Amino acid sequence: MIRAGIIGATGYAGGELTRILLGHKNVEIKWYGSKSYIDQKYASVYRNMFCLVEDVCRDDHLQALSDQVDVIFTATPQGFLASVLDERILSKVKVVDLSADYRIKDVAVYEKWYGIEHKSPQLIDGAVYGLCEINREAIKRARLVANPGCYPTCSILSLYPLLKEGLIDPSTIIIDAKSGTSGAGRSAKTANLFCEVNENIKAYSVTGHRHTPEIEEQLSYAAKQPVLLNFTPHLVPMNRGILVTAYASLKPDATSALPTSEQVRAAYERYYKEETFVRVLEPGICPETKWVEGSNYVDVNFQIDPRTKRIVVMGAMDNLVKGAAGQAVQNMNLMFGQKEDEGLRWAPLFP
Amino acid sequence: MIRAGIIGATGYAGGELTRILLGHKNVEIKWYGSKSYIDQKYASVYRNMFCLVEDVCRDDHLQALSDQVDVIFTATPQGFLASVLDERILSKVKVVDLSADYRIKDVAVYEKWYGIEHKSPQLIDGAVYGLCEINREAIKRARLVANPGCYPTCSILSLYPLLKEGLIDPSTIIIDAKSGTSGAGRSAKTANLFCEVNENIKAYSVTGHRHTPEIEEQLSYAAKQPVLLNFTPHLVPMNRGILVTAYASLKPDATSALPTSEQVRAAYERYYKEETFVRVLEPGICPETKWVEGSNYVDVNFQIDPRTKRIVVMGAMDNLVKGAAGQAVQNMNLMFGQKEDEGLRWAPLFP
Amino acid sequence: MIRAGIIGATGYAGGELTRILLGHKNVEIKWYGSKSYIDQKYASVYRNMFCLVEDVCRDDHLQALSDQVDVIFTATPQGFLASVLDERILSKVKVVDLSADYRIKDVAVYEKWYGIEHKSPQLIDGAVYGLCEINREAIKRARLVANPGCYPTCSILSLYPLLKEGLIDPSTIIIDAKSGTSGAGRSAKTANLFCEVNENIKAYSVTGHRHTPEIEEQLSYAAKQPVLLNFTPHLVPMNRGILVTAYASLKPDATSALPTSEQVRAAYERYYKEETFVRVLEPGICPETKWVEGSNYVDVNFQIDPRTKRIVVMGAMDNLVKGAAGQAVQNMNLMFGQKEDEGLRWAPLFP
Amino acid sequence: MIRAGIIGATGYAGGELTRILLGHKNVEIKWYGSKSYIDQKYASVYRNMFCLVEDVCRDDHLQALSDQVDVIFTATPQGFLASVLDERILSKVKVVDLSADYRIKDVAVYEKWYGIEHKSPQLIDGAVYGLCEINREAIKRARLVANPGCYPTCSILSLYPLLKEGLIDPSTIIIDAKSGTSGAGRSAKTANLFCEVNENIKAYSVTGHRHTPEIEEQLSYAAKQPVLLNFTPHLVPMNRGILVTAYASLKPDATSALPTSEQVRAAYERYYKEETFVRVLEPGICPETKWVEGSNYVDVNFQIDPRTKRIVVMGAMDNLVKGAAGQAVQNMNLMFGQKEDEGLRWAPLFP
Repeated sequence: MIRAGIIGATGYAGGELTRILLGHKNVEIKWYGSKSYIDQKYASVYRNMFCLVEDVCRDDHLQALSDQVDVIFTATPQGFLASVLDERILSKVKVVDLSADYRIKDVAVYEKWYGIEHKSPQLIDGAVYGLCEINREAIKRARLVANPGCYPTCSILSLYPLLKEGLIDPSTIIIDAKSGTSGAGRSAKTANLFCEVNENIKAYSVTGHRHTPEIEEQLSYAAKQPVLLNFTPHLVPMNRGILVTAYASLKPDATSALPTSEQVRAAYERYYKEETFVRVLEPGICPETKWVEGSNYVDVNFQIDPRTKRIVVMGAMDNLVKGAAGQAVQNMNLMFGQKEDEGLRWAPLFP
Repeated sequence: MIRAGIIGATGYAGGELTRILLGHKNVEIKWYGSKSYIDQKYASVYRNMFCLVEDVCRDDHLQALSDQVDVIFTATPQGFLASVLDERILSKVKVVDLSADYRIKDVAVYEKWYGIEHKSPQLIDGAVYGLCEINREAIKRARLVANPGCYPTCSILSLYPLLKEGLIDPSTIIIDAKSGTSGAGRSAKTANLFCEVNENIKAYSVTGHRHTPEIEEQLSYAAKQPVLLNFTPHLVPMNRGILVTAYASLKPDATSALPTSEQVRAAYERYYKEETFVRVLEPGICPETKWVEGSNYVDVNFQIDPRTKRIVVMGAMDNLVKGAAGQAVQNMNLMFGQKEDEGLRWAPLFP
Repeated sequence: MIRAGIIGATGYAGGELTRILLGHKNVEIKWYGSKSYIDQKYASVYRNMFCLVEDVCRDDHLQALSDQVDVIFTATPQGFLASVLDERILSKVKVVDLSADYRIKDVAVYEKWYGIEHKSPQLIDGAVYGLCEINREAIKRARLVANPGCYPTCSILSLYPLLKEGLIDPSTIIIDAKSGTSGAGRSAKTANLFCEVNENIKAYSVTGHRHTPEIEEQLSYAAKQPVLLNFTPHLVPMNRGILVTAYASLKPDATSALPTSEQVRAAYERYYKEETFVRVLEPGICPETKWVEGSNYVDVNFQIDPRTKRIVVMGAMDNLVKGAAGQAVQNMNLMFGQKEDEGLRWAPLFP
Repeated sequence: MIRAGIIGATGYAGGELTRILLGHKNVEIKWYGSKSYIDQKYASVYRNMFCLVEDVCRDDHLQALSDQVDVIFTATPQGFLASVLDERILSKVKVVDLSADYRIKDVAVYEKWYGIEHKSPQLIDGAVYGLCEINREAIKRARLVANPGCYPTCSILSLYPLLKEGLIDPSTIIIDAKSGTSGAGRSAKTANLFCEVNENIKAYSVTGHRHTPEIEEQLSYAAKQPVLLNFTPHLVPMNRGILVTAYASLKPDATSALPTSEQVRAAYERYYKEETFVRVLEPGICPETKWVEGSNYVDVNFQIDPRTKRIVVMGAMDNLVKGAAGQAVQNMNLMFGQKEDEGLRWAPLFP
């Protein structure tokens, strides 16, 4: 039995971690950390857990926790983990961090986009970026996994084969992303009230969203050259789901011929054929967030526009599952030698 | 391995059956019946099943099917099963019928409310009303289970202890129910278009909904006297969920004293304490459909109004799970000696 | 030109008042009061008003305001107006109060249900309950109008003819009401976040909602006897709209005959035939909130159940218009000798 | 009094035309044409019009209609108007066509994208593209106005100043658009059912949507060179609203300097400062569809990304108003010498 602790258990990602881990046959949750609800019953914060979780919420004391569990999940505000994590903890437990603290290798980039000082830069190098489909082997050996952001997971997986295979011009990438409102978290803000979000759509953080450098870094590795791109998130009146629509110019080969649909499809198959959680849809079928809701799948597909010589790439996933808690569990499975899909095998919920 | 066939696999209840049975470790789905989609891939009708179901849809030939499986689930229009079911089929397989064909013992009542002739009234007596919490032992021995309607499941479980214990006056019951739109089915009607349902609420079938006699019959058994009541369903702009708000006058005892909250609570505990899927909430907590979404739970609670001497009873559940496919699987588990909650143990999805 | 001031202009009801008054040809808004946004541009709080309102928000100083306008609308928290209103103000301006401070004649009832002390009970007697269809003449002469609550408006108008004509037994009334989320106001609470309300329905304040005594008082006047009833509000995942479904036992006449549908319809026509804003729908048509959205209409209808000898009454309206700001303007029109429907003549928005 | 006839009065755009024209003080609707509902009361199709419209629906006989009215609005399927319109009709009445039949000057382009033969190509030249802010003077003199598509209206108005002033490279334009579901029309299709659209977002018609050549043609006029672009529409779970997010590379001037935010803002002001219905938002404020709901406004703004040297342009409007019926009435106002905003002066509805 893997003993797990969750820090930040009462945010939406923490709640989803609880839901998924409860269904994992080899995991036992030992600690529900939530500074705001200390000593309150977890099931009084998330009433779906009534009769399922009897524990009360506890403080976020990482040192104490590290003596009692095998793995710690941190679903905490940016900067928190970096300020408390140290070698002593890492020598005792494995950590899957759902915050952004160890995702970006260049600490200056982190500090610029997040506007805070990084308190444990010495740990960044040892952290593995936990995008399982791409970094599987490194994750298996990792002590500290930086669980990818929701937008980056969907964006990177949608574009990865194209950059890896040199099928697009990396300087032309535009990512237009749409997210359900659970991505905005559970804190009480007027802008996230039902009446403000319902019957509404808007872009936000235009040209300045913090997931931009994370996407750029990972796509740079794939492209083997620095990638700068536009990333625009939108808030959609739904609870769950992220849809990415990305655009790029196709790169002609030596004979000036553009990649064909068949060639592009072959590239996607090359990387994802064996992947359980990435589904390359049949030609002509557009991904829809509803078809992956509640599951760990990412559905991807593309359409070539011969008129403009661009490719339109689409990816859909559940932001709380593959975009957060599901991927965190997938990472844990890899780190602990479990089957990669253990506890993650449910079909998406429809409708 | 229990071999299962689904007739009506492409309606919403059929889709939910598929989702649940795919996660049941002792069941294998052998037949996806759907008259409208014969020879089409099931996963092209329900794209959440892409990579999970490879089968194509087949005709609804019950005789052929009964040679290949151990259990048949019928999620078909009213009257269909009654017109094709016979002893020969029942001698070979067990049947869980999600339609209303065998729910009502008095065939005249069925024919009046449904407006169709019943083609196999001789089978009604042998059918067991599949409300597991109430008819558990009979279900275990049944060949044919009439899976309860969605509204009846929630209404009956919410009121059952009160009538069984004689705590309310059966002639005063009023049930005001609210359902998500999946209850209206997947057929293309203008009234169910997004723009017509969204930002809207309405009552429908006022004083004439077909679930009325089903609720009345079952509550009559509990009250040991005939029950007539008002049942009003409403359409709510959400996908899943049923909320029942029921009203009744409390019955004074010999000394004219009304039942207290403690007495009522004790009555609920008496019937549901050992039940996995009925959760009696803590005092003062109102059931919400969101807290049971995607799960087989029914959350119930009540509030006494000393001013009017009435009790207000509330019940919430997922209409497609406990109100249809989940309960059908719960019935199958009982009929086949499985653990009652096998394949039904996931926590509700939130948010 | 009627000069108007709004206190509480940045709540949802205040915003709706602004929208309606901007379209009223004989009104000029002179004062946007909002304690929380003093000196901020009103159009930065409600961006729909960009280019339409240039003013900034001001303090809620009633004495100062009373020298500059002809009418004050107060859309403020319970107790505020009662604590500042006095004869001096009322001698200078007319007041339409959208809070509950002057709706209930018995100050003890007010203090019990609202849990606060009433600071100006001497003004209650002079206040007129502003349900235009019922108190029209008194409103015309009023200095202080208590604008009815949203639930009471819909509940009372739906049931009024039945009680006035003695067609139902007043001791049997049950009101099950459903409201859009704008009724919960614009303050930032977790329970009103999009993800908590969306895909969810729940009852709240069961047996204890503050609108109960207001409804009871007004229906008592109609019934000419004290009325106690059950009122249960529900929160629905939509922005606007209230639907009331009410139940009562029909009262037999001297010969024990129950009222017929025709007699009931005739009663409704008697009271509402000449009313612009109450639409008695055709037989069999259930009111839907969507059909009145954005307008000042209340749609009502009923269905008799001969089995249970009860009547089911339904009413639908926009909670922010007829349930708040629209009715306030209708009251103002009456108080100032304007056409009653001035500024209120737009058709409902659909879809 | 302008006498108006509506052909296609029972679609969503036709319903909105009715709503708007009922509030126009100088218009009288004489004919509600709807082939599907002939002889049925219009208010039984759109119950919001109960007590407001007494007429029944009539056939779509343009010749008969042209003798009785001054203006005909056609909200009909593609190809219908082209197949019945002729000189005789145009000599008697003015026509505002909400279909695409006369929007595209090159008949071959129309026939290719719409897949139908154009039956009256001789009338195309005389038709004026009814984007009021751009073709105002021509519209005033027009007999036949081609009312722009919803996506084109929002896309063109968002990008127009940039192309007109040469601030962007026309070969780099990408338009990612999001629409509420009323844009999909009122016909009963499974894909538009509540349960399929709710909690879902998807792209559709990727690289092949029919509004693409319409946008390209109009932007080509502005750019004074042919424009090819990518246009991707998405379906959003809301009733009304279109949001356009467009991307383009900024064009450096002779000194290789890129346009500054101030220069771009000045360009927008140049074209829209005097326009009632285009609101250029304050710096940093992103357009949201909710802030324009139910109104004829288009809110636009932009953000420059110095890292990628691109500009992100955003536009939001109500697809049924400025994107259809509102703009049609604005066109009618121009054609008949009315004030341009007559009947269109209501503030947006919020929330």
